[in-house]
Amino acid sequence: MAKSSLVPLTLCFIVLFQCCSAQLAQVISWHQEEGQKQTRSRQFGQCQLNRLNAVEPSRRIQSEAGVTEIWDENDEQFQCAGVIAIRHRIQQRGLVLPAYNNAPKLIYVAQGRGIHGAVIPGCPETFQSSQSQSQEQRPSSRDQHQKVRQIREGDILAVPAGVSDWIYNNGQSQLVLVAIVDTSNPANQLDENFRKFFLAGNPQQEIQGQSQSVRGESPRERKQNSGNIFSGFDDRTLAEAFNINPELARRMKNERDDRGIIVRVKGELDIVLPRQSREEEEHERREKDNGIEETFCTATLKQNIDEPSRADVFNPRAGRMTTIDSFNLPILRFLGLSAQKVVLYRNALMTPYWNINAHGIHYFNRGSGRVQVVDHRGQTVFDGENFVVVKRASEQGLECVSFKTNDQAQISQLAGRVSTIRAMPEEVLSNAFQISREDARRIKYNREEVSLFSPRTPSGPRD
Amino acid sequence: MAKSSLVPLTLCFIVLFQCCSAQLAQVISWHQEEGQKQTRSRQFGQCQLNRLNAVEPSRRIQSEAGVTEIWDENDEQFQCAGVIAIRHRIQQRGLVLPAYNNAPKLIYVAQGRGIHGAVIPGCPETFQSSQSQSQEQRPSSRDQHQKVRQIREGDILAVPAGVSDWIYNNGQSQLVLVAIVDTSNPANQLDENFRKFFLAGNPQQEIQGQSQSVRGESPRERKQNSGNIFSGFDDRTLAEAFNINPELARRMKNERDDRGIIVRVKGELDIVLPRQSREEEEHERREKDNGIEETFCTATLKQNIDEPSRADVFNPRAGRMTTIDSFNLPILRFLGLSAQKVVLYRNALMTPYWNINAHGIHYFNRGSGRVQVVDHRGQTVFDGENFVVVKRASEQGLECVSFKTNDQAQISQLAGRVSTIRAMPEEVLSNAFQISREDARRIKYNREEVSLFSPRTPSGPRD
Amino acid sequence: MAKSSLVPLTLCFIVLFQCCSAQLAQVISWHQEEGQKQTRSRQFGQCQLNRLNAVEPSRRIQSEAGVTEIWDENDEQFQCAGVIAIRHRIQQRGLVLPAYNNAPKLIYVAQGRGIHGAVIPGCPETFQSSQSQSQEQRPSSRDQHQKVRQIREGDILAVPAGVSDWIYNNGQSQLVLVAIVDTSNPANQLDENFRKFFLAGNPQQEIQGQSQSVRGESPRERKQNSGNIFSGFDDRTLAEAFNINPELARRMKNERDDRGIIVRVKGELDIVLPRQSREEEEHERREKDNGIEETFCTATLKQNIDEPSRADVFNPRAGRMTTIDSFNLPILRFLGLSAQKVVLYRNALMTPYWNINAHGIHYFNRGSGRVQVVDHRGQTVFDGENFVVVKRASEQGLECVSFKTNDQAQISQLAGRVSTIRAMPEEVLSNAFQISREDARRIKYNREEVSLFSPRTPSGPRD
Repeated sequence: MAKSSLVPLTLCFIVLFQCCSAQLAQVISWHQEEGQKQTRSRQFGQCQLNRLNAVEPSRRIQSEAGVTEIWDENDEQFQCAGVIAIRHRIQQRGLVLPAYNNAPKLIYVAQGRGIHGAVIPGCPETFQSSQSQSQEQRPSSRDQHQKVRQIREGDILAVPAGVSDWIYNNGQSQLVLVAIVDTSNPANQLDENFRKFFLAGNPQQEIQGQSQSVRGESPRERKQNSGNIFSGFDDRTLAEAFNINPELARRMKNERDDRGIIVRVKGELDIVLPRQSREEEEHERREKDNGIEETFCTATLKQNIDEPSRADVFNPRAGRMTTIDSFNLPILRFLGLSAQKVVLYRNALMTPYWNINAHGIHYFNRGSGRVQVVDHRGQTVFDGENFVVVKRASEQGLECVSFKTNDQAQISQLAGRVSTIRAMPEEVLSNAFQISREDARRIKYNREEVSLFSPRTPSGPRD
Repeated sequence: MAKSSLVPLTLCFIVLFQCCSAQLAQVISWHQEEGQKQTRSRQFGQCQLNRLNAVEPSRRIQSEAGVTEIWDENDEQFQCAGVIAIRHRIQQRGLVLPAYNNAPKLIYVAQGRGIHGAVIPGCPETFQSSQSQSQEQRPSSRDQHQKVRQIREGDILAVPAGVSDWIYNNGQSQLVLVAIVDTSNPANQLDENFRKFFLAGNPQQEIQGQSQSVRGESPRERKQNSGNIFSGFDDRTLAEAFNINPELARRMKNERDDRGIIVRVKGELDIVLPRQSREEEEHERREKDNGIEETFCTATLKQNIDEPSRADVFNPRAGRMTTIDSFNLPILRFLGLSAQKVVLYRNALMTPYWNINAHGIHYFNRGSGRVQVVDHRGQTVFDGENFVVVKRASEQGLECVSFKTNDQAQISQLAGRVSTIRAMPEEVLSNAFQISREDARRIKYNREEVSLFSPRTPSGPRD
Repeated sequence: MAKSSLVPLTLCFIVLFQCCSAQLAQVISWHQEEGQKQTRSRQFGQCQLNRLNAVEPSRRIQSEAGVTEIWDENDEQFQCAGVIAIRHRIQQRGLVLPAYNNAPKLIYVAQGRGIHGAVIPGCPETFQSSQSQSQEQRPSSRDQHQKVRQIREGDILAVPAGVSDWIYNNGQSQLVLVAIVDTSNPANQLDENFRKFFLAGNPQQEIQGQSQSVRGESPRERKQNSGNIFSGFDDRTLAEAFNINPELARRMKNERDDRGIIVRVKGELDIVLPRQSREEEEHERREKDNGIEETFCTATLKQNIDEPSRADVFNPRAGRMTTIDSFNLPILRFLGLSAQKVVLYRNALMTPYWNINAHGIHYFNRGSGRVQVVDHRGQTVFDGENFVVVKRASEQGLECVSFKTNDQAQISQLAGRVSTIRAMPEEVLSNAFQISREDARRIKYNREEVSLFSPRTPSGPRD
């Protein structure tokens, strides 16, 4: 008889994975067919799944002003989904060094406040810094740069492939970011490896996965190879390209820098953001929601997923569900990614469902609960495309952010008012399940709620 | 000297493959390079072809009310094309259990009549069943469900990935369906395996291919693992999700069900379809042909390919050709599939052609004939993209349905009025073939017909 | 410490590769991970790069009226980029035999003049040849064919997958063509092998790569297998398809033809092209630039990349840069390819940049210079997506045509007025590089030029 596999997302589970307030539980796993070779591709791999794991990070990198954890392609489960995950914990006045990836990235601001700068190639520098002393004659003395954004807890940030970005913690507490990089995205034409290119500093060695090591290289050689993207050029070429002296060119390579990925800013990063009332912000946001984007340069790159008012589904006895996809954040069309946040109140239940056209990678932010995933044979557990999932909160409730590998991810619900079962004729259900017409009616109509179900009968369902 | 390989599609050939009126002749084959590893991907495999086979099904599953045959990825030829094929022979009052696939499906109704129900997630229940006794107070007593469709011989049905469907034979004879599931479609993000998820019954074990078996599992264990998608959930979760009692939840798992894939309906499936005159149907169809689709929920999912009036090419001395693609069935845009039916009269010939942008999987429905496929070296035979094909009917004529892995599949014809040869200057042909200008003119202009050629000179072509 | 790898593109380098005026320097290389199997796919291969090579052709084929060189998937570097490259050197009155590929092709006319005929399936024959003697009664005596195009040095020609084309040298000198075939393009559904299908002649054996050999075949068998696409059909079928006599059908197979790929035309190819003043041509071109394309049949297939007036970037002290992509040659949308030409004056420099969404394959046409490519660890060299590149001309200047595997390829520049460094706040640069605000300002503002930089300080950059 088929046995279900359960993942108890309780506090002890969190402790098990050595993080106090959250864990990345990617509910996928796989093993290989005998005599078959693994491929690195999500699309063509042999992702056969017979267990369900919440996953520990592959690597942990301590920097001057924060900690970075990476779940990468060295973990078979993430490799199978074709994504990698990164969590930055940035201290006050910490700056994540500017860098770009070979694949699109979706960031969830799990905690804190900060400033996000993303450089879109070819777009104008529309922001001016405060230190300009009205010396309009010399442009070099009044600093201009591309738009920067104030970010806060609950924001989803979209960063296309090849776009470099940096993040600075200007808040009063730690800034925690959870990001997914979709290495199997078509935008990544090179291969499935995660490659991060730093524009400054010297943190290359740690961030790249082991799979990137060159055969026959000794650890010492690898150490020597680390550096930012300028470190490979000779000083003279670099000096000529920037029209600077070779000494400054040499210093751009940051060869003796050991601050890591997250560096501490001397003093305070003096960047002035336009002040805006909350009403203006709301107004602007709604305009963007209409999908009015003038050019790629003015495209919105962030959207808040935590605000209760943005919920797509709300049930006062069960919870709320919010989706950020290319309908309300159009840039996601270019990334092929979206996000969904589910807040389940105590003992509430999310409808069983399957993903139609995406993988899901789930980050459990707060609370605890249970997740059940069933495959086509009713045994192994996985949250890949098409597999059936159900989530249930504990007494503490549950908060979960799901990243999806499609900008318009769709699910098919199994129970409730908008469900597959309800869409089928009673007679088909009665004959298919070999049950009476009355029982078929119960299966179709007993749950009138949509997506999120209240815990009507916690100890024993009604007869 | 180059030798051509021939596939005689005569009656004896049909007998060879143990089916009396039809056979699936997928005219592809392959072998592997020495020292090279096969990949499961159509796009990146090493599909080298040196023989031509009509293919026997990999598996045959006997159910309570019908038989299912599967040509799946265990067959190297189908694996190479990245599709699997299924044929259901459904007895009267047989119901194919509701299920969904991890990839898009295109069905050809080869024989009979039936009812097709496809559940599009999030769409309303717009059909009411007859047993409603105007008790508008209790919604549960008047059954509502999503649109169902009467289907008949010659219909092409489109079922997107992740959409569950069921089929019922309400006709007076056997209902025969031939379907292609495009497992290498981008919609299938998981892997190249065919996965069918049943919503009811207990037929999992048989339908899944051997490649799905978990290493080290004994046959007995596999038997135990079978079940529908509900069988993996514990009764309590299921009961709570549907707000039913645990006993009914347990019965939804159909653990002791041995009816297989196609079950016999008790009495008659009491589904009332709107009656429609043939004229209305024609009218509606033409409107749909204009491509006017309001939403995904109202999208047309079927189109008849057999009606002579729909033919794109008609030659009273040679036959007719009908294409169903995203121009006349827009939902196919989302599936990336199309179908073409060729009816060749006795001894007629289809123009030699090559596929520009699709694979072809051919189902020979009636009659017999010969198919010749030539590769780039003039020896091996295959009907993949770009390979040159010619079809010729025998004395009995020939009917063939071709499934194509592109919603706007294009061919390049070699002979006739719309051909590559005719598009080139005589002088180029004369110099390229080293023939006289008169001969070049003969090659260009002697066939004035388009696509389907009459058997002008069956015993010996004119001089 | 990181060492840069240099490719000196000087005259001696050219001699090394045995061609006097040009060489194909594809600046990629790779090696394999231990214990990992190579895949043939650009997207999912393990393209790890630790050296930079200018590449010799894999094969060289001598024909009656010219020479063909092929850089194909047998070269690991080209395999890694998922493309193959072909160079034809066509003598006067040489005709490249009509053929089609299983993947899209982009041709650069490096030298000379000629006529290009591409056959778009289903399009009408709109050109008439001169030998029509107003005999309107017999269509066969006045030859009609699809549009042909006069081509000249600097033209970029787009040929979609499955479209057959031929080229004739009607100029007074050698006609040299350099082409890229994108075998990993989605249009190539079959596999990653390059397959060329000749419609006439007998050159199959030479053009196909060794990877196409069938296991166990002896060289003698392979010889026997060669032929054009008609050679696999039996004479009777061919005769019936074209309604010609079997003797002529047999001659279409060109079994004893040993002229190779490029044949010499007897006399002169008598094709009359519409005469057009240069002004008309300009006018027509500008109209096409507006993107007004009526149908696929009238789509423009060529655009000149050499004309100085078409330059997108022009700096009288540095050079010019011209891009042909789907914005100015819309058919490239269907090919997913584009091209860029860079002309650098003596000692000038192209900005360091990285490719956002494409691979680059560079053909160095004239002059010499240096190319530096840096990877994410500042050591290995490659010009794949995301890797940082800088080009610098020698005293002779430099001309380079880059083919890109995206129809709207984007780069991110590192230095100059439109650069990533300039788009970031001074304070971020100052903290990231650990340099003073003044130095950060120098890095941002010292280069005011865009893309192409003049050699202000050839011997030593300014302090």
